[in-house]
Amino acid sequence: MEFNGVYHQASDNYCYPLNEDELIINLKTGYDVKEVNIILGDPFAAGILGGGESWNGNKEPIIFKKKLKNQIWWTTTVKPEYKRLKYYFELFTEDEHWFYFEDGFVSGEQMELEGRSRQCFVFPWMNPCDIPVTPKWVNETVWYQIFPDRFCNGDHSIDPENVVPWRNHGKVKNEECFGGDLAGIIQKLDYLKDLGITGLYLTPINESPSNHKYDTTDYTKIDPNFGDEETFQKLVSEAHARGMRVMLDGVFNHCGYYFAPWQDVLKKGPESEYYDWFMINEWPLDFKGGAAKKKQFYTFAFFDNMPKLNTSNPKVRKYFIDICANWVENYKIDGLRLDVANEVSHLFCKELHLRLKQINPDIYILGEIWHNALPWLRGDEFDAVMNYPLGESIKDFWIDKSLTNQDFEYTINRCYTSYMQQTNDVLFNLLDSHDTKRLRSDVKNLDEYFAQLAVLFAMPGSPCIYYGTEIAMEGSFDPDCRRCMPWDEIEAGKYKERIEMVSKLIHLRASEPLLKSRNFHFPDDFSDHPRVIQFRKMGWVDTYVEVIINCSGEDVEVPKDGEILFERHCIDSTLLQNGILIRRISR
Amino acid sequence: MEFNGVYHQASDNYCYPLNEDELIINLKTGYDVKEVNIILGDPFAAGILGGGESWNGNKEPIIFKKKLKNQIWWTTTVKPEYKRLKYYFELFTEDEHWFYFEDGFVSGEQMELEGRSRQCFVFPWMNPCDIPVTPKWVNETVWYQIFPDRFCNGDHSIDPENVVPWRNHGKVKNEECFGGDLAGIIQKLDYLKDLGITGLYLTPINESPSNHKYDTTDYTKIDPNFGDEETFQKLVSEAHARGMRVMLDGVFNHCGYYFAPWQDVLKKGPESEYYDWFMINEWPLDFKGGAAKKKQFYTFAFFDNMPKLNTSNPKVRKYFIDICANWVENYKIDGLRLDVANEVSHLFCKELHLRLKQINPDIYILGEIWHNALPWLRGDEFDAVMNYPLGESIKDFWIDKSLTNQDFEYTINRCYTSYMQQTNDVLFNLLDSHDTKRLRSDVKNLDEYFAQLAVLFAMPGSPCIYYGTEIAMEGSFDPDCRRCMPWDEIEAGKYKERIEMVSKLIHLRASEPLLKSRNFHFPDDFSDHPRVIQFRKMGWVDTYVEVIINCSGEDVEVPKDGEILFERHCIDSTLLQNGILIRRISR
Repeated sequence: MEFNGVYHQASDNYCYPLNEDELIINLKTGYDVKEVNIILGDPFAAGILGGGESWNGNKEPIIFKKKLKNQIWWTTTVKPEYKRLKYYFELFTEDEHWFYFEDGFVSGEQMELEGRSRQCFVFPWMNPCDIPVTPKWVNETVWYQIFPDRFCNGDHSIDPENVVPWRNHGKVKNEECFGGDLAGIIQKLDYLKDLGITGLYLTPINESPSNHKYDTTDYTKIDPNFGDEETFQKLVSEAHARGMRVMLDGVFNHCGYYFAPWQDVLKKGPESEYYDWFMINEWPLDFKGGAAKKKQFYTFAFFDNMPKLNTSNPKVRKYFIDICANWVENYKIDGLRLDVANEVSHLFCKELHLRLKQINPDIYILGEIWHNALPWLRGDEFDAVMNYPLGESIKDFWIDKSLTNQDFEYTINRCYTSYMQQTNDVLFNLLDSHDTKRLRSDVKNLDEYFAQLAVLFAMPGSPCIYYGTEIAMEGSFDPDCRRCMPWDEIEAGKYKERIEMVSKLIHLRASEPLLKSRNFHFPDDFSDHPRVIQFRKMGWVDTYVEVIINCSGEDVEVPKDGEILFERHCIDSTLLQNGILIRRISR
Repeated sequence: MEFNGVYHQASDNYCYPLNEDELIINLKTGYDVKEVNIILGDPFAAGILGGGESWNGNKEPIIFKKKLKNQIWWTTTVKPEYKRLKYYFELFTEDEHWFYFEDGFVSGEQMELEGRSRQCFVFPWMNPCDIPVTPKWVNETVWYQIFPDRFCNGDHSIDPENVVPWRNHGKVKNEECFGGDLAGIIQKLDYLKDLGITGLYLTPINESPSNHKYDTTDYTKIDPNFGDEETFQKLVSEAHARGMRVMLDGVFNHCGYYFAPWQDVLKKGPESEYYDWFMINEWPLDFKGGAAKKKQFYTFAFFDNMPKLNTSNPKVRKYFIDICANWVENYKIDGLRLDVANEVSHLFCKELHLRLKQINPDIYILGEIWHNALPWLRGDEFDAVMNYPLGESIKDFWIDKSLTNQDFEYTINRCYTSYMQQTNDVLFNLLDSHDTKRLRSDVKNLDEYFAQLAVLFAMPGSPCIYYGTEIAMEGSFDPDCRRCMPWDEIEAGKYKERIEMVSKLIHLRASEPLLKSRNFHFPDDFSDHPRVIQFRKMGWVDTYVEVIINCSGEDVEVPKDGEILFERHCIDSTLLQNGILIRRISR
């Protein structure tokens, strides 16, 4: 047996309570393992642990599995009668028989001879207060990310001084302000509702000198070029009236140059009461050639005008958590995204979680983390992270034409075995954002474009499209991905077909619960067609939704079956060109 | 390459800050990997992450490694200039060349062709408030565990009514009380100091009807058969005066039958204000045939007289954390051991940690957890756990004579690669306790006995001996492991040689810093003698302490070298019989 292929731990994504009754247990093995049993039971079934008594569990097969690149992910759900569980595994390869304990492997033969107890895995108690809970509504939501300066200008009276005329086409520059504002968003709420959007995610709206506003001057104030507190409250209530949630962007890793405490430090130096709100190694700062580069103080990246906030300081944590609490209490926001969330202290995230969930247990706390984020997703920090790994996995399949549907299966399965199921349900799935190239600029044609959107809307989690996705807006890296919405053209019907296509996918996601669900698997009907993706979202007993996407360039035959929910380039329901087929099949 | 042998994650025991400057990075590979490099650098060295820029790190070899059963554990320490790190690995087998990223493997060839950036590992920021710190003094301490009823009776005026005469020899019964008390412990402090003891760990002393007192009646009161608050305060101050710390045992998983809130529930049922302090599924309880067995309520194991406390209830957490705070503030205890710590809610452990460390940052919080305890050892719950896995690993080598020094190396390395180094420094190392057979009853002769103690005292962590270990007291499982200390015999000099041997080991541990240190490795000078253990505790540059233990039954030659610190059955410093050689070697 391939011993190094076998792994389990009685914690994190390998063993966790899904709710007060169910415990999920996952095991990785190599492909040489053909059959797995779990031997499980109450730890005290035989008396007291450590008392030398012999303990026997019940044996149950583990049936469900997912394929990873070099390993199999076995998964089962158990209901420990007394909320506690002791267990180990039995593994069969073609011709070997092993037992797997926390402290190692014992051969089948040896077990018979010795019968000696080894260190089993233990999930000691399913305490309700430790069970991670994520907000139910998030899985039902389709998000629309808005970069306010470029979305819609609804109130010219508050345009910035240096405003430039709206630009329906072509590139924008780093320093340009176009005058988009909150009133503009309110004007477009009906448009977004028609599109099927049920959640708005706004990049920062607090006062700041830039157009992106990730360099905050005043966290207590809406940027006057965007509107005021009243406008924002109106935006939230108008959105709520249309069944849309609102998520703000909180920048607590760093502040802007004009943030009053930083200005105080620049003026008074170590005498400032805010000196330890930042991370200063040397005083005075010498900005020539970059004070951050010289490690005189710490900043976001190496930007001297974005000083890092010291979230190890309790006063800093209190100040910013109070800010967030106010947004939840008085602005009635439904979600909070944390910018550069991985650099903020865990302690900040934990205290924030505690405070915001006390005010609104249904608040959605989302972290911007690009890499594996398990340490932030244990239930007491974030509900979810921006699921860039999923977006990359989807896009990779179209960028690298040598990848097969097997590779696609491995990588998607990797994305959904890294975290707990309650996290997977609310992962913030996206293909692009203000921080990446736009999807349209990563693909060669609209077939590829819609195919990737179709995958996005069929995945577990909470999908988000970046403003302009519905018209297949182009744009390379920042600042090019932040172009203006061409409302004149949209209203003139120029993008009618694209908008309809995206809207159809969104509405299908909304109306078909199986598309949102976390249970899916990859059959291998198309093993002869490595560029045809096929997966099934499983429902109760005999119903599933099947998604087939042909990216091979060659038409493939599809056996006629079920009820078609969505199709693109599917001829007579049986010949799939470079297109998409989504159908509901009941047996 | 054996892909499934390779593992890293940018968290937990694989990647963590040791202090504000140093980040420890560990990587597991199969034995086929011969050489490892880490490519590392500042995440923003090339600009902003996600901006499509190309990033290049510096390459450094990873030199240090430990052998595990089927894998190699590579380890390195880095000092990220700006407190943040991005990295990936380069692996060489005999004839293959691979790169290892968070999202998978890329061949050396492919990297040259593509140069495409993959998802690197990221440790985003070393926030000081998130860096786990454990109390320094614990690594310097040698503990002595006392089961008060059986240790020494110093005050006959408070003997329990049902006291039975002290029994210098032979078995004790489950219900017998012998009248040992706090005054008795105070009487023996000088004896313990002479032995070299610097920490006392007392099993519970709060009021309870049993002799073990794990079924507490009143957490605010010292058991009147043990003494009163004054006696305990005197015990602590007398111990402190002799350079000894004191650790109490807190039982917050369950209470005793006579705990007032439980009595209130038994009287008033669901009307009791304490009803939700417990975990009751059905009312009224029917104790015939066991209410716990019938799942009417939850208890410790299946003992109806030990109702489980609901530590998901904030009131329960506050009540018991207040109790602990009082012990730290007013009793001045130095350590707190939590009984059945794995079943108490994590939230309780976190709030307890926060509160007690605020009162005394140097308080030692120890959890009774027998299985892998990483989820409790992330820096915000326990400083350490009772290191039963180490004890089992040591004892296994003597129980199973087929195990080799290689097996010993694997299992010891497993114990010290499971947690962070700051945890390893303070792990509570023990070979036996009130919950196990006594070590003496697990070995065939005193050679084996002292050999295991020698290993215990040479391991990183904080060693503890169970009362009576110094006289090689016998005893099988509870209650046999809880016999009375035969003070008459001790004072008559009956155990002089044994006590001297143990005392010598303890004093050596105290005087030789390298014995306490975390750096050790296993040379293979005795690869021809699989039952000879050899390991070296490494110091600065050219000094180390070498431990050689012969358990083969055949004498082995040892090249004469260095300064002998301890020896047993070592003839002319060169012929080691079934004995122990500890020496300091400087080059």
